[in-house]
Amino acid sequence: MEAERVELLSVVEDHYGGVVVSVENQEPVDSELFSSVLEASIYNWRQQGRKGVWLKLPILHSNLVHTAVKAGFRYHHAEPDYLMLVRWIPETPDTFPANASHRVGVAVFVVNDKKEMLVVQEKSGIFGGTALWKMPTGVVNEGEDICDGAIREVKEETGIETKFVELLAFRQSHNSFFEKSDLMFVCMLEPLSSDIQIQASEIEAAQWMPVEDYAAQPFVQEHEQFDFVAKICSSKLDGNYTGFSNVRTCTSSGKKTYLYLSNRDASLLLASKQDQA
Amino acid sequence: MEAERVELLSVVEDHYGGVVVSVENQEPVDSELFSSVLEASIYNWRQQGRKGVWLKLPILHSNLVHTAVKAGFRYHHAEPDYLMLVRWIPETPDTFPANASHRVGVAVFVVNDKKEMLVVQEKSGIFGGTALWKMPTGVVNEGEDICDGAIREVKEETGIETKFVELLAFRQSHNSFFEKSDLMFVCMLEPLSSDIQIQASEIEAAQWMPVEDYAAQPFVQEHEQFDFVAKICSSKLDGNYTGFSNVRTCTSSGKKTYLYLSNRDASLLLASKQDQA
Repeated sequence: MEAERVELLSVVEDHYGGVVVSVENQEPVDSELFSSVLEASIYNWRQQGRKGVWLKLPILHSNLVHTAVKAGFRYHHAEPDYLMLVRWIPETPDTFPANASHRVGVAVFVVNDKKEMLVVQEKSGIFGGTALWKMPTGVVNEGEDICDGAIREVKEETGIETKFVELLAFRQSHNSFFEKSDLMFVCMLEPLSSDIQIQASEIEAAQWMPVEDYAAQPFVQEHEQFDFVAKICSSKLDGNYTGFSNVRTCTSSGKKTYLYLSNRDASLLLASKQDQA
Repeated sequence: MEAERVELLSVVEDHYGGVVVSVENQEPVDSELFSSVLEASIYNWRQQGRKGVWLKLPILHSNLVHTAVKAGFRYHHAEPDYLMLVRWIPETPDTFPANASHRVGVAVFVVNDKKEMLVVQEKSGIFGGTALWKMPTGVVNEGEDICDGAIREVKEETGIETKFVELLAFRQSHNSFFEKSDLMFVCMLEPLSSDIQIQASEIEAAQWMPVEDYAAQPFVQEHEQFDFVAKICSSKLDGNYTGFSNVRTCTSSGKKTYLYLSNRDASLLLASKQDQA
């Protein structure tokens, strides 16, 4: 059994007294064989005093899902190509981390020194086919920084190169798809180019538009959040608004991440840059 | 077949030309029966010009996962008690929304008018058993507003009643669990009570501590992000920092959500409150 277990299950210890198990065979696995290997493994994990077991099943092995559930596993999360199941070995309540609950998006205010902003008309989605000129928007990829996602979306939709200036505001909304929530970050970017090349599959048209013309569109004025964000953008251009800057800092475990914070008097940021120097 | 289909599959149209299908039987369903019902349904959906099909399978029906995958479905997301699969009916590329990618957490700065902050020592986790006094932290529930999640976590861990003041900063980090990312929001709250009742299961100790004593802890000073956040909190108490306020506004679809924005001169917020009045 041990030889089969080693061949069938790839086992890695995690940092919390548990193990992460994957089935990495490139060929389908017989569910009865898998069942006996899994039962023997659970016995061993209990003897070893293991806590949480994570079982990653590629979609190729969807025939093993039912087997795992019968062996006491429950679902944790899924991606297009795999399902992650978990089982808590001790008799205590489990301490598995919560699943991801939010999708992260950006709405991007790209404004040049003539106070013109980059606006698009979309081909599909809820604004598809309307005459609304709107900021480029998009979903931040898994593992992508918000500031980088904003730059990428603008480049993809309009071909414009940009650099990140500031986060102006954000919105949290719920039940965006099934029980999941959304966070939408309004980012201000500075354009580094001006010639627009639209992404034909998603974008109907794009142009540089005076900020006041954008704000004067009836749809923007009649919809509270659009109007609010337009006012924030205008205040920013008038020098009356300070959003959050992004600072590269270290977490306590040494990981480099962005901290977003207000930087009105710059003293906090300067302190940080000196620490890094 | 039609009668069986109606009994077995609960079908609801979505807003994008697709359907959401659930298997709601309380008893296990035979996988061969399910297979023929699903094949017939796919034929019908194609005739009807449907686009995306969402299939929600409660974990009770884990025996049907393999059947659905064989019928061309792939995984979209999963929660402890169900797996959501999707299948795109037309020949075009699918436009299913991305899965949730981020977990959302809060670190809470509760400070009273004596410039004392609420701090805790945790029983477990990476800071369990250390002498570190830290801000209460926790995960925001699915569907919960960040400002409400901060209030709830403080109440749960320490029994202290609070109200939301401001969002001071936030951090985005990646690969927090498998490929998923984290957003951690630092919230400032005003206490409405002072008698601490600790949550015995998670919290070793809690107390009110002068902000300068918190900031002077060696761990805080030696770890860049802890030190940075402590400096932000001190700047805030000195009147030199403006975070983001939360304003209740309407999305374009009429949903009430919070917009978080800087409110240095209060004119934007006042404008909003007049609109709402």
